[in-house]
Amino acid sequence: MEIELITTGTELLLGRVLNTHQQWLGQRLADAGYTLSRQVTVPDNDPAVCEAVQTALGCAELVITTGGLGPTSDDITRGLIADLLARPLGRDESVASHIESFFERRNRPMPESVLVQAYVPEGAVVFPNEHGTAPGLAIEVSPNPFRAGGGPAWLIMLPGPPRELRPMVDDQAMPFIRKHLPLEQPFHCSILRSLGIGESMVEDMLLGPLRPLMDRGLDLGFCARIGQVDIRLSGSGPGMPAIIAEAESTIRGAIDKQIYGTDDETIEQVVVGQLIATGETLAVAESCTGGFLGHHITNVPGASAIFAGGVLAYSNAMKQKLLGVKKSTLAEHGSVSKPVAIEMAEGALTVSGADHALSVTGIAGPGGGTPDKPVGTVWLGMASRGGRPLAIRQFHPYDRETFKHATVHQALELLRRRLKKIG
Amino acid sequence: MEIELITTGTELLLGRVLNTHQQWLGQRLADAGYTLSRQVTVPDNDPAVCEAVQTALGCAELVITTGGLGPTSDDITRGLIADLLARPLGRDESVASHIESFFERRNRPMPESVLVQAYVPEGAVVFPNEHGTAPGLAIEVSPNPFRAGGGPAWLIMLPGPPRELRPMVDDQAMPFIRKHLPLEQPFHCSILRSLGIGESMVEDMLLGPLRPLMDRGLDLGFCARIGQVDIRLSGSGPGMPAIIAEAESTIRGAIDKQIYGTDDETIEQVVVGQLIATGETLAVAESCTGGFLGHHITNVPGASAIFAGGVLAYSNAMKQKLLGVKKSTLAEHGSVSKPVAIEMAEGALTVSGADHALSVTGIAGPGGGTPDKPVGTVWLGMASRGGRPLAIRQFHPYDRETFKHATVHQALELLRRRLKKIG
Repeated sequence: MEIELITTGTELLLGRVLNTHQQWLGQRLADAGYTLSRQVTVPDNDPAVCEAVQTALGCAELVITTGGLGPTSDDITRGLIADLLARPLGRDESVASHIESFFERRNRPMPESVLVQAYVPEGAVVFPNEHGTAPGLAIEVSPNPFRAGGGPAWLIMLPGPPRELRPMVDDQAMPFIRKHLPLEQPFHCSILRSLGIGESMVEDMLLGPLRPLMDRGLDLGFCARIGQVDIRLSGSGPGMPAIIAEAESTIRGAIDKQIYGTDDETIEQVVVGQLIATGETLAVAESCTGGFLGHHITNVPGASAIFAGGVLAYSNAMKQKLLGVKKSTLAEHGSVSKPVAIEMAEGALTVSGADHALSVTGIAGPGGGTPDKPVGTVWLGMASRGGRPLAIRQFHPYDRETFKHATVHQALELLRRRLKKIG
Repeated sequence: MEIELITTGTELLLGRVLNTHQQWLGQRLADAGYTLSRQVTVPDNDPAVCEAVQTALGCAELVITTGGLGPTSDDITRGLIADLLARPLGRDESVASHIESFFERRNRPMPESVLVQAYVPEGAVVFPNEHGTAPGLAIEVSPNPFRAGGGPAWLIMLPGPPRELRPMVDDQAMPFIRKHLPLEQPFHCSILRSLGIGESMVEDMLLGPLRPLMDRGLDLGFCARIGQVDIRLSGSGPGMPAIIAEAESTIRGAIDKQIYGTDDETIEQVVVGQLIATGETLAVAESCTGGFLGHHITNVPGASAIFAGGVLAYSNAMKQKLLGVKKSTLAEHGSVSKPVAIEMAEGALTVSGADHALSVTGIAGPGGGTPDKPVGTVWLGMASRGGRPLAIRQFHPYDRETFKHATVHQALELLRRRLKKIG
């Protein structure tokens, strides 16, 4: 099946905005057994959008567009496609009243112009927008005037903002695609997520043992992110669930300690879930990460049940005052050191009354490095009620934000292993 | 001038890798007055790459490809383009010796296969790769067999890894483009960044007053992000700097209070810059944002000079213990309230010794809302040495991460206005 993604937006071509739709949608589709054949970005002007849609309908059975459905003058996709397919726009009352109540609930005056979003092409299926005003739209193009032979195609239009598009895809577009463009054979996909082991190392360790299963149709893929590698197992057909299960057990046999989760799980979700299950609580003491560890933890809905809070001890004065780090420890070892990481974690435990505490102290750069402690050096500490404190040294010589990401993931992994009693 | 970017890579379509080339290259080109007309991603297979290159050469004067120049079996771009343009590959001795010394300097054995990268299409200009082995290549396609009339085009091939591509673009490709495809007129561009005003409202207020300048050639663009709108003013020709200056003063006349910065500035950079300039320091007291405010501040290099740190007062106990919020205030008004926001900010000021403190307390959801204080309700507090404390109520009924983004930007904006003594 040919599937084409058209991302519209002059701001994408000007580089004002990062195009995250390609990756996110590509992955969502691939995980369900649908592979993008092509992706194109065009500016918000009539000929460019029309030409892209016509070309795509000429070869693909499924064409997905993103963007251009909003209320402003450069939101032209809906009107253009209505014209192109000769489907006159008509007002959809359910969309109109959704938009009105959207503004009402927020106590904001509604500019009349936003109601343009309530006009939908004749015969279009409407995907209500739970997080915004522009609905998604699906149109069956049949007969298809742009394909030799007239073979049918589905055209799905999605809003541009990710926080509107993503839930709409998960809750509405994917089930719609599965129903109207079913796969010939059931597709199976399983992802194991690892942390703390490099991509080439993962590949070296797994390629040999998994080769026989790949010969039986297993598709093996690796995706490296900051400090993490996802291992993707997929394939079609009735025998595939057993093959994937065998692959999973082979992988766990080789690197079980490094596997923290499956599918879409994040390390913070896993750790918060472990704490909720045991009824234990967590506090943090952050220096160089500046709050990014607390941010990760509190991104998980329900985190308030297990997160006590913590201290952003960016300055040495705050480390002493709020966490009880000793002046002599700072003087003797410096703030980026094992004893300080441990005293920070112990201080956070004491002040918060939590069951566990994680601490971070390091040098994010670009300034502040020394030959002994170059930029990227970081100590992670952990203290637990009734457990011995520990600290490990890590080295993440990257830019500031990548450094923070890698550091926060490692800190959470430290706690995951203690809670799981491994490592 | 038509410019097309072709990013090659099956992993991009599967969503295993984020395509950052489009944004980075798009911005580099746009800032120099060259606007990408179109971007397409195709998988690493012969027909897809050939078709994309032919189509692009059919309409664009400049075609840029990324990826597919390396030594492995899926690196097919160089060979395909040599065939397509009938430019036989020949060994370039300077590239070959660069590759050999690249391995030598790293003390790594050189697999013979990597020397495929030293074969370049006849007549191609070579861009040496300072950070890898595959050189960039530029070919003048003249006469151009793929365009009616045969009008010439430049085809520039760049390596896929960003740390090889980016310096090659800055140091070699951009000067090359400026020389061989000069702009007819000098290009000018200016961006104003606003916060706290919706996209349709910004457009409603500015379109009328700016219309006369647009009639004189000004290009006006809006780019909405979470709680923010960028206003981009650009155009060509000798009169344009004056037109852009006039547009800027019109915009500032209408929404000066909402303009926090220009070009690539972020709100956290502006606030950290203001504090560095005045020599003042900042502390935070975060509840529902869980560290995201501190994370923003500490993303700015040099923030350690002005950021004292703070408290993640997620629980009421931490609010009382570390920030001195009164039990009676919590009991009487609840934790999401003006008095608590103010006591949190005052507590952070006291405990840190900083000159300013920002506080955040709210309901990120999905749980925890009440009819009186629905999910999305948040109080932002501010206290300053020698200034009166204040707190404002905001409502951001979005998903957790968007809520945090909008809240953090508003908190920083509150301080920006105090430091600038506006609002």
